[in-house]
Parts: sequence; structure tokens; C-alpha cells
Amino acid sequence: MIKLIYPDLIICNGGVLLMGEDETYDVLIIGGGPAGLTAAQYTARAHLKTAILDKSSTAGALAIADKIENYPGLTEPISGKELLDIFREQAIRFGAEYLEVQVIGVSLDKEIKEIHTMERTFHGKSVILATGAMGRKPTVRGEKEFLGKGVSYCAICDAAFFRGKTVCVIGDSEEAVKEAELLARFAETVYLIAPSKSLKVSDEHPLPKIDNLKLLTDHVVLSIEGGDVVERVKLKDRNTDEEKVLPMDGVFVYLHGNKPVVDFLNFSVDISDEECIITNRMMETNQPGVFAAGDVTCVEVRQVVVAAANGCVAALSADKYVHHRKRRRYDWSK
Amino acid sequence: MIKLIYPDLIICNGGVLLMGEDETYDVLIIGGGPAGLTAAQYTARAHLKTAILDKSSTAGALAIADKIENYPGLTEPISGKELLDIFREQAIRFGAEYLEVQVIGVSLDKEIKEIHTMERTFHGKSVILATGAMGRKPTVRGEKEFLGKGVSYCAICDAAFFRGKTVCVIGDSEEAVKEAELLARFAETVYLIAPSKSLKVSDEHPLPKIDNLKLLTDHVVLSIEGGDVVERVKLKDRNTDEEKVLPMDGVFVYLHGNKPVVDFLNFSVDISDEECIITNRMMETNQPGVFAAGDVTCVEVRQVVVAAANGCVAALSADKYVHHRKRRRYDWSK
Repeated sequence: MIKLIYPDLIICNGGVLLMGEDETYDVLIIGGGPAGLTAAQYTARAHLKTAILDKSSTAGALAIADKIENYPGLTEPISGKELLDIFREQAIRFGAEYLEVQVIGVSLDKEIKEIHTMERTFHGKSVILATGAMGRKPTVRGEKEFLGKGVSYCAICDAAFFRGKTVCVIGDSEEAVKEAELLARFAETVYLIAPSKSLKVSDEHPLPKIDNLKLLTDHVVLSIEGGDVVERVKLKDRNTDEEKVLPMDGVFVYLHGNKPVVDFLNFSVDISDEECIITNRMMETNQPGVFAAGDVTCVEVRQVVVAAANGCVAALSADKYVHHRKRRRYDWSK
Repeated sequence: MIKLIYPDLIICNGGVLLMGEDETYDVLIIGGGPAGLTAAQYTARAHLKTAILDKSSTAGALAIADKIENYPGLTEPISGKELLDIFREQAIRFGAEYLEVQVIGVSLDKEIKEIHTMERTFHGKSVILATGAMGRKPTVRGEKEFLGKGVSYCAICDAAFFRGKTVCVIGDSEEAVKEAELLARFAETVYLIAPSKSLKVSDEHPLPKIDNLKLLTDHVVLSIEGGDVVERVKLKDRNTDEEKVLPMDGVFVYLHGNKPVVDFLNFSVDISDEECIITNRMMETNQPGVFAAGDVTCVEVRQVVVAAANGCVAALSADKYVHHRKRRRYDWSK
């Protein structure tokens, strides 16, 4: 096992991971929203070796919420991102590792589960799925047709394929800006195409000034076109109604929806007709050792406090599973 | 309907209530712990006329918790009481009324439900039961035998019966101190008998200096004795093992257990063999318009965040019930 000399370095953004490949976690949590971070807080506090695999600390339904006032315990309204930062710091304080990585596939039917990212494969005795509900059905004309042929939902996964080419990112969130910035390290030109008048980013994270990164606000993508692969996009300027065509090799879509994010699972756990993960009250999926929590599940109420409670229960179930306990621990106080 | 001139006055502790007797609430919440206060926050925010009927702001499993660090959203450990204060202020800020009253009975099978307290009867279109799990089986010898014959669990209810008599309070919590203080206004002598070396009260709420209120720390009540009614208690000094007998007319027990508090319900909703309230996932009991949340329910996990989430879900179900909606509102953000 490779020892970590600079443990801080494992908190990276698409960079190099130093942790030993053969390290097995007790609990791998996919998703860094309220469900995943609460689960991490509880498992780490119970001395289970825990990693949170999060696509981006600025993505997700809570991260993009302007103001939250109805989470119990708030003394005043704060931004979703601020609340999420508190959750994350709390989980890290209890000993959880937070890793910004993009999960691209899973193998959940073995005793030791595997979570595949671009950089490495993670091994875990148990897995908690907490990817939330920000997915969407393809809505831009050509988006579905060219998926995998120039259309992508993962800059970190696919950026390298577009070295020296022209690509665009569709979106206006911090996540979209981050992904555009990453792509600009590979592509010759990156267009950030925002449907809104201005980017929805905080003052601390403005659009970086990079020569080959061009911003088009108030522009709607009408269609993605090409032959075997993407060749161009058709745009409309919402101010002038003027239409234009830009030659394009890759299109990265970062528009937010409200469907559970389950695409990476490839049906390895039971999913309902509404495409949410089916669990029982203890947040167990049909797959032993695999739990789910928050908006990715078939939850009746999509609220931060409910997602957090789900995460707490999933953590308790994972603890029971990892320790082969017959009974659950009911009281988790010290 | 009597108009409220000084609305603040309805927040009282066993005092006189000014509100009109015939006022019907949309939601009456029994219990002011995390489940009840979160439910209140959500129903009040949804413009449902909401009252929280709470026995005491210093009673309950959270209120007496020394330190809480695992509630998601805390930047540092705080006392349970501090966290509860934040929850309560939040609910009041959204428009809920917080009333310190002792519920002594309920009528839940009508369309307009009735909640009976010593001072008045409250009417509500819906009720959320959130009394937590601090109940206990009688454990002191004679406690069960003399219940209603000098043994009581409710100083506010029974203090007036002991005018000029000698009574004791068994307990060491802020709640016990508060009740002893109340009893001292009626009884000639009040003994506060604490099993521990010192009272478990915060510096802001010390034992008040009252001539007829006497504190006995490190003392265990061995038995409650008498004929038809209580006449004396037998005590042991835990330091010296010395036993003594005190003449006594009333015994008020404020020791905490971990059984769901359901005694006031008199089986008007379905209770399991473990004496918890049976609900479905939407926190509905078998009684239309009556919901339950938190540790009083047959919940798998007794954690603040789970109780709070239960309260949120119960609130949503009450909202649906009061508005005769076919479908629940899934998104409660603004």
C-alpha cells in the first residue's frame, strides 16, 4: 500500500491522485450533496474509512440554490453553496476524504465494489449512491443523435479528445465555467454559450480571462449538426433574434434538469419507471452493500433536510453491513 | 373571536392564555423538539395557521443533550438546548405560535380535532404528534401504585392540589428545577431530590434561591410509601449510604427514559407493541388528518436530522390534507 505523504494533494480537481490504488475503503460515497456529505459525516465519525467522490463542489441542486432559509438550524438565509461548504467541512472534520472526481462507471455486484473514474478505480466494501437529481433528457436538437459523437456531459472524461479543436460548453453555472476552463487547456477555442443574460457565478469565481475562452451570453443553441460526428452548432442571439452557425467539433452540455442522475449506474441496481433508485426505509437497494440516499432515490420530498436524513440512515445501514452486525445501532451519540 | 392585543402574552408558562377559545388552527403540533419545530417551520412558511404545544422548552432528548456535533450544518459543537433554540426561533420567524402548555388529552377522531390542556382546549384541522421518546415505565418502588394518589408527572396540572403541603420532585434536569420552582408557589416545602452529584442545568438557569425549596443531591428515592395516598418517601444518601424517611404528600417524577411519549393519546391512534406510533412513509397515522414525526414514531434511527426530516414530511402531508389536495407539493422552495 502506498503511504500518503501529502494527504492534502488527494483533494484535487481532475488532477493526479496520489492514494494507493489497492486501498479498500469501508464506504465509498458517490455524490457530494447533502445526502452524500451527511452519510460521510456519520460513517467517518463511526471510524469507517470513507471517501466522497464528487463531480464538482459547485454542481448539484443545492450548490446552485440562490438562498436557503428552510433548512432547520439556520439562523439566517444563506446561499446553497455556503450551506454545502459547511456540510463538506463537517464531513472532512470527522475524517472523510473529499475527492473531486468524475465517476464514469461502477461494478457493484461483487463483495468488493469498484467505482471507476478517469484517473483510477476505487474499491469499497460498501457504496452509497447520492448523485442527486440534476439529470435531464436531451432537449437540444441533435443532442441525443450526436451523444458520444461529439456531444458529451463530462469535460474531465473527454477533454483530451478535443486537443487543438473547437468546442463549446452550453450552460451558465459555476460548473459550466469550470468545465470550460478545463477544456481551454486542451481545445484551440472554447465557446461558453449561456442562455441567460449573465453567468450565475459568485464574485469569488468569475470567468477567468483566457485568450481561447470566449463567452456568448443570451445565446440559445438551436441545433447541433453534422455528418458522422458533430460539425457545427446553430445559435440564436436572444437580443437581436439573429441566427448564426459556428463550426464545432465538440459540444459539452451543462444545463440542469430534475431527473435523478443514474446514467453512470448502467442499471446495476433496481431503478423505477420514473428512473429513480428504489430503496427500502433503511435506504438499502436490491444490491447487498449498496445503499442510496437523497434525490436520486424515489423519495417523496425533495428537501435538503430529507436528503440529509436519508444520508444518515444510509450511513447507519452501511455501518451495519460492513461490520456484519445483525442489529443496527440505534443510538449514534457518543 | 377574541382579538389578540398583546400577542406576546400567549407565549406563557402555565399562565393565562389570551387567545380566543374558538379559534381553529390549520395545524396543531404537539411537541417542541426537532420534529415538531421543523414541521412548524414548514407549515407556517406555507401560510398554514400553526401552533406548537410544548410541555417545556427545556425538556426532551435534545434539550438535555450536553453537546451535539453530528447535526449536519453545524460549524462547531453546540449544546442541544442551543440547537433547539435555533430551531424554535426559526419556526416562530416563519409565523408559528409557540405555546408552553401541557397536553393532558386529545380527541382525534372528529373532523376538527381537539387538544386538551389545563388552561383550554385547542381546535385544529390537522394534528402532528411529535412528543419524542423520553417516557419511562415506573421504576421507583411505589411509583406505579400511587400514581394519581400523590405521584404525578405534571406539576403544572397538579400543583394546586398540594397547596400548603410537602412535596418532592425527583430529577436533576432544568425541567425538574422549573417544576420544583412552580410547586414552591403552592406547596409549603418542596424537596428537589437529584440522583446525581449536581444539577444538570446551565449557568443561566441555576436553582433559584427560594426559602421553601430544598435541594438534596446524590440522593436516591428507594420507595414511595403510604396508605390510600402517599405519606412518605424513603431515601438513601449515596455518599454515606445512610437511609432516611421524609414525610411527603406529593411526588413529582422527572426522570428521563427512552420510551415514546404516547400516554396522553389514550390509544386514539395505532400504537405498536413497542408503544411507538405507527406511520407510513408520509408520516400519516391510521387517523385521517393526524400525522406523527420523530422519536415518538416507530422510527429506525433516533437522530436529530431524521426527526427534523420526519417533521418536514409530516408538514407536507398536513398541508395536503388541509388543502384537500390530491397531489403533494414536491418542491417547497419559493
